[in-house]
Amino acid sequence: MRILVTNCNTTQGMTAEIVRGARAAAGPGTTVTGLTPHWGPESAEGWLDSYLSAAAVIDALRTYQEPYDAVVMAGFGEHGREGVRELVDVPVVDITEAAAHLACLLGRRYGVVTTLERSCGQIEDSLELAGVGRNCAAVVGTGLGVLELEDAERTEAAFLAAAERVRAAGAEVLVLGCAGMTGLQRAVGEKLGMPVVDGVGAAVRLAESLVALGLTTSRAGTYARPLPKRRQWGRRP
Amino acid sequence: MRILVTNCNTTQGMTAEIVRGARAAAGPGTTVTGLTPHWGPESAEGWLDSYLSAAAVIDALRTYQEPYDAVVMAGFGEHGREGVRELVDVPVVDITEAAAHLACLLGRRYGVVTTLERSCGQIEDSLELAGVGRNCAAVVGTGLGVLELEDAERTEAAFLAAAERVRAAGAEVLVLGCAGMTGLQRAVGEKLGMPVVDGVGAAVRLAESLVALGLTTSRAGTYARPLPKRRQWGRRP
Amino acid sequence: MRILVTNCNTTQGMTAEIVRGARAAAGPGTTVTGLTPHWGPESAEGWLDSYLSAAAVIDALRTYQEPYDAVVMAGFGEHGREGVRELVDVPVVDITEAAAHLACLLGRRYGVVTTLERSCGQIEDSLELAGVGRNCAAVVGTGLGVLELEDAERTEAAFLAAAERVRAAGAEVLVLGCAGMTGLQRAVGEKLGMPVVDGVGAAVRLAESLVALGLTTSRAGTYARPLPKRRQWGRRP
Amino acid sequence: MRILVTNCNTTQGMTAEIVRGARAAAGPGTTVTGLTPHWGPESAEGWLDSYLSAAAVIDALRTYQEPYDAVVMAGFGEHGREGVRELVDVPVVDITEAAAHLACLLGRRYGVVTTLERSCGQIEDSLELAGVGRNCAAVVGTGLGVLELEDAERTEAAFLAAAERVRAAGAEVLVLGCAGMTGLQRAVGEKLGMPVVDGVGAAVRLAESLVALGLTTSRAGTYARPLPKRRQWGRRP
Amino acid sequence: MRILVTNCNTTQGMTAEIVRGARAAAGPGTTVTGLTPHWGPESAEGWLDSYLSAAAVIDALRTYQEPYDAVVMAGFGEHGREGVRELVDVPVVDITEAAAHLACLLGRRYGVVTTLERSCGQIEDSLELAGVGRNCAAVVGTGLGVLELEDAERTEAAFLAAAERVRAAGAEVLVLGCAGMTGLQRAVGEKLGMPVVDGVGAAVRLAESLVALGLTTSRAGTYARPLPKRRQWGRRP
Amino acid sequence: MRILVTNCNTTQGMTAEIVRGARAAAGPGTTVTGLTPHWGPESAEGWLDSYLSAAAVIDALRTYQEPYDAVVMAGFGEHGREGVRELVDVPVVDITEAAAHLACLLGRRYGVVTTLERSCGQIEDSLELAGVGRNCAAVVGTGLGVLELEDAERTEAAFLAAAERVRAAGAEVLVLGCAGMTGLQRAVGEKLGMPVVDGVGAAVRLAESLVALGLTTSRAGTYARPLPKRRQWGRRP
Repeated sequence: MRILVTNCNTTQGMTAEIVRGARAAAGPGTTVTGLTPHWGPESAEGWLDSYLSAAAVIDALRTYQEPYDAVVMAGFGEHGREGVRELVDVPVVDITEAAAHLACLLGRRYGVVTTLERSCGQIEDSLELAGVGRNCAAVVGTGLGVLELEDAERTEAAFLAAAERVRAAGAEVLVLGCAGMTGLQRAVGEKLGMPVVDGVGAAVRLAESLVALGLTTSRAGTYARPLPKRRQWGRRP
Repeated sequence: MRILVTNCNTTQGMTAEIVRGARAAAGPGTTVTGLTPHWGPESAEGWLDSYLSAAAVIDALRTYQEPYDAVVMAGFGEHGREGVRELVDVPVVDITEAAAHLACLLGRRYGVVTTLERSCGQIEDSLELAGVGRNCAAVVGTGLGVLELEDAERTEAAFLAAAERVRAAGAEVLVLGCAGMTGLQRAVGEKLGMPVVDGVGAAVRLAESLVALGLTTSRAGTYARPLPKRRQWGRRP
Repeated sequence: MRILVTNCNTTQGMTAEIVRGARAAAGPGTTVTGLTPHWGPESAEGWLDSYLSAAAVIDALRTYQEPYDAVVMAGFGEHGREGVRELVDVPVVDITEAAAHLACLLGRRYGVVTTLERSCGQIEDSLELAGVGRNCAAVVGTGLGVLELEDAERTEAAFLAAAERVRAAGAEVLVLGCAGMTGLQRAVGEKLGMPVVDGVGAAVRLAESLVALGLTTSRAGTYARPLPKRRQWGRRP
Repeated sequence: MRILVTNCNTTQGMTAEIVRGARAAAGPGTTVTGLTPHWGPESAEGWLDSYLSAAAVIDALRTYQEPYDAVVMAGFGEHGREGVRELVDVPVVDITEAAAHLACLLGRRYGVVTTLERSCGQIEDSLELAGVGRNCAAVVGTGLGVLELEDAERTEAAFLAAAERVRAAGAEVLVLGCAGMTGLQRAVGEKLGMPVVDGVGAAVRLAESLVALGLTTSRAGTYARPLPKRRQWGRRP
Repeated sequence: MRILVTNCNTTQGMTAEIVRGARAAAGPGTTVTGLTPHWGPESAEGWLDSYLSAAAVIDALRTYQEPYDAVVMAGFGEHGREGVRELVDVPVVDITEAAAHLACLLGRRYGVVTTLERSCGQIEDSLELAGVGRNCAAVVGTGLGVLELEDAERTEAAFLAAAERVRAAGAEVLVLGCAGMTGLQRAVGEKLGMPVVDGVGAAVRLAESLVALGLTTSRAGTYARPLPKRRQWGRRP
Repeated sequence: MRILVTNCNTTQGMTAEIVRGARAAAGPGTTVTGLTPHWGPESAEGWLDSYLSAAAVIDALRTYQEPYDAVVMAGFGEHGREGVRELVDVPVVDITEAAAHLACLLGRRYGVVTTLERSCGQIEDSLELAGVGRNCAAVVGTGLGVLELEDAERTEAAFLAAAERVRAAGAEVLVLGCAGMTGLQRAVGEKLGMPVVDGVGAAVRLAESLVALGLTTSRAGTYARPLPKRRQWGRRP
């Protein structure tokens, strides 16, 4: 099975990291390929970045030529998943919803720890529209930007502090609220004494499941194929 | 007062029509300028178009040089408003939410009549996140595409038929669910015996109100200014 | 345009203050007239006062002889708006809902700071039924009664303290939860670093908007005209 | 135990009818006294009537001199209960909420059949704020006014027709949505094959229960005693 | 009237205590009989216990031979009420919902104080499905197990501490969240300055009310009689 | 990986059928074992059956001696999953929630077609508490009992008719609402033109995913291990 994982930003290093996380989670026989958008923001933090990212990711997929069996969208809380569902004929799983779906199976309430506080609202909206907002106890920020996550020690400390706030709000399961946090679940899970769900791994397994079950996006409603029309993807030079 | 009205698609004729509607609604002393995105879809119908439109509209505003006092975003149910709120320092009003805000003042429940059925879900989501979904009784499609609205007779007939479904669901007020329907409120309001709210006019008046009251978007939270970073707006030639 | 502003209590001084606030917010060409109910409570604090006020305000409007183009009801969280909508043929805007409608346009979540804690529940109910409760983060009291607001310094200090609680609950925009606080928005807005919405000004602008757009209350449902019948407005002497 | 039943309108005949229904439902040792407001509407149909009624009922209770152990408010969907809770020290039960509380014990979803369609919205709001709206499947009107209920045959036929609509919406229990329908539960219950709850009887039994258990309205919050202040109950002659 | 009160566990002493509480609350002419399940957990604390208890209570009722007019199920937050409603032809009242129904009549928001924190989620779910979750401000644990409640002093102290948390969350009325707390309402009510509702007493009075009004569970929907089929109640020896 | 699939009833043939469906869905390297409860109902239809089934399934797992890596609970809409989560240390996936989780990834709204109408309420409650009720458009019955599903032609016809009702309610994805319908997804998917999700297959894949990701139920909250105490599982002989 061939899974195509889209990064939400143009930073190649982050794509590589996400692909590593995805491969670590994938089943035998699954190949994972990363797709970095050709344009967009270098990191997605806030609504403006998110909409720019959504268009760029859709454009990257639209012009991607290799075959694949499923798409995993690796931008936590970022926009675009419904547009990609219209575009491609294979299953599409966004890491935000994926983490929440698995988290719901592990505890009565889950919580999300993300990067900047400004992203919390976007994540709440994304979970709500995905249909899994009910059992989310809280979405909390660590105060660290996406590109600051490389300092593993600081990230872990900030994550643990934020996790306590989420637990106090009633969460029994934690969700890593950024694709760049992939891998952190091993480091912090034991210290916290609760399951920690990484959206990238969750999405890869959900995508595999859908493919294996022969399921793909419904065309009978809002995710119908895009109508043929003139569209221009970015400014003419 | 200078209001900048953004079309959600690249069709200049529709921008002109929206500007006409906006001017008809604007107060004395208000000037209305239309802004057509330099790229994007020729009409926005569905999620893929909507995300493409959001990025293109943000790009158009980012590079627009003239001064203005408020932005009206004329894409019913289309994405992008939160990103524009991050970008500009003046009030931003989206016609979707604007129509709903005024409709809530006119009856206990309102309903929306839009173009294609595939757009209904997007509109419901947009109203919900704007905080005005509670009193929406139904969102119903006419089956007509955005670019098919020019046949006024057919449009009116389809609108009236859809309006009956909305009324049966409990709506006491109707909302025109497409910027391209501007003007229809006069034609159908009397026949229906209920108020018909046009989002373009509503948004213009709300934008004027915010400016007059000295109010603009809060920076104290999720609509903080975009962080400085590298962003590329469309594919390099 | 002639806007009639109803006070919710019998204190003439408060009517005058509200009218001042309304005039400061009104557009050119708008005249504002205040209407003090002939009976009712001297201030509305709690449910009993609110129902008494509702009947008295409706009675005052019922017997008011001068022409007007819209009604603004200046009792934050007080009852009566639906009854007034049945009674008069012009648009009716209550300051509670008005402030919330504008606040929704300025941030993802808003909060209300009001007078006594006992009023918070009423305000929450009023926002919920108006259809704008979803994005309300919190309603908080200052502990000051309506008639204690005259000490500007104390009021401002109490307001700022309460505002911090509202901000901590996630609000990005503040709403003044009492008609008697009109004017405070200028004093505290800058200190707080967030937009502060005054319901009186918001309602005046919304009423002007509805009139300008030719919109008024729907008769096609729950706000139908009152049925003709015997009604007695207060005890026979 | 002495229960005081307040009619929501000035029609003495309806008070008498309600008292009959209340007595039929009351336990041994309970005496029921009816209280007709001294002013207000001759029947409550719509919001204006409801607010007028609320003030008049509160005024009637405020000046009532005889002792009583509980108040039953017999105006289905009418306003005022929270104000009465502030005023008196004994339990207060409104027939709207009472019927819903018992209905919830009898089936997974209940529905309400009331008089005019225009009252349905008010009833929905009343149930929602009372905290029992979740399991309400539908509120439906018969098209008959309050004072038209005397024609028993027509009322029964209209009730049965409306009940079918409520059942189709998922209701397993029916609620009589008007104090003037008291008694109808016997006539229609068997024909419908579902339990029919009359709010007057329900409220009487709930009031008795609260008194017997030594429970009364909490003063620790929004139902605190009215503050001492000047209030005028109706226009000076 | 004969009320059958089912304990949710096999501890006879607790049945006796519940029966005492029920008798103290019952009206004249009501006889109360306790029914201890023949199997199940010795106390119900958590989901596993709750499902075991549900089956055991249903089995006990299924094989109970004496006549009775109503069932009161005395397991706070425990499962089974819908199954019992299918089984018997008389009214069934669960103490969880009963306490909430009465609490809603006494204040705008209520809160629950229960035994172990692990039970809070179950109680929240039970209230939500019963249709009375909306006005529940919080469910809080004391940290004491069901069988530890016998130390009255410790229980009272823990209860008062937990009650403060519930009050801070907005509750105006308290609910005793365990059948084994019956009697505590007298001890703590005055100290707290708010009404305290005991579910056992509430359920007894509600059951009496339903019987007196001639109401019983609807068969027209989800609570239809169990279909005839083979069922085995516990392992064959 | 060893998955243990529990049937919710004592009918061995249905266990065999479920195991066949589970095996068809399982990944390579997964072994599926069926577990039929030793007692309980021969089919679970309604609340009484469901609680009996919950206790019997928990008992069967409690006494099961073979090792396994995950539990799949194959009773659509049946109770017990939280109790099993307390009991075992491996992941537990209920087919009701499993189907909904995958369905949410395939369309904006999903619907469920089940057996008898009486089961619809139970299923709605189960989805709601699992946190995936928001995007459920409708739950509809076919009128066929669990043990009547063997007539494939009649089942398919009834399913297709019910599916039309679900589609009209807005569903874009269908869920088979009974473990006994496993296999039907292939037969009807193409005719309906929408994805059809079978809960058994969905749960098997989700269970595999959790195991592969090293995730299991949180002990940090409501799903803590059952407290040690005396419990009796069924009547003593």
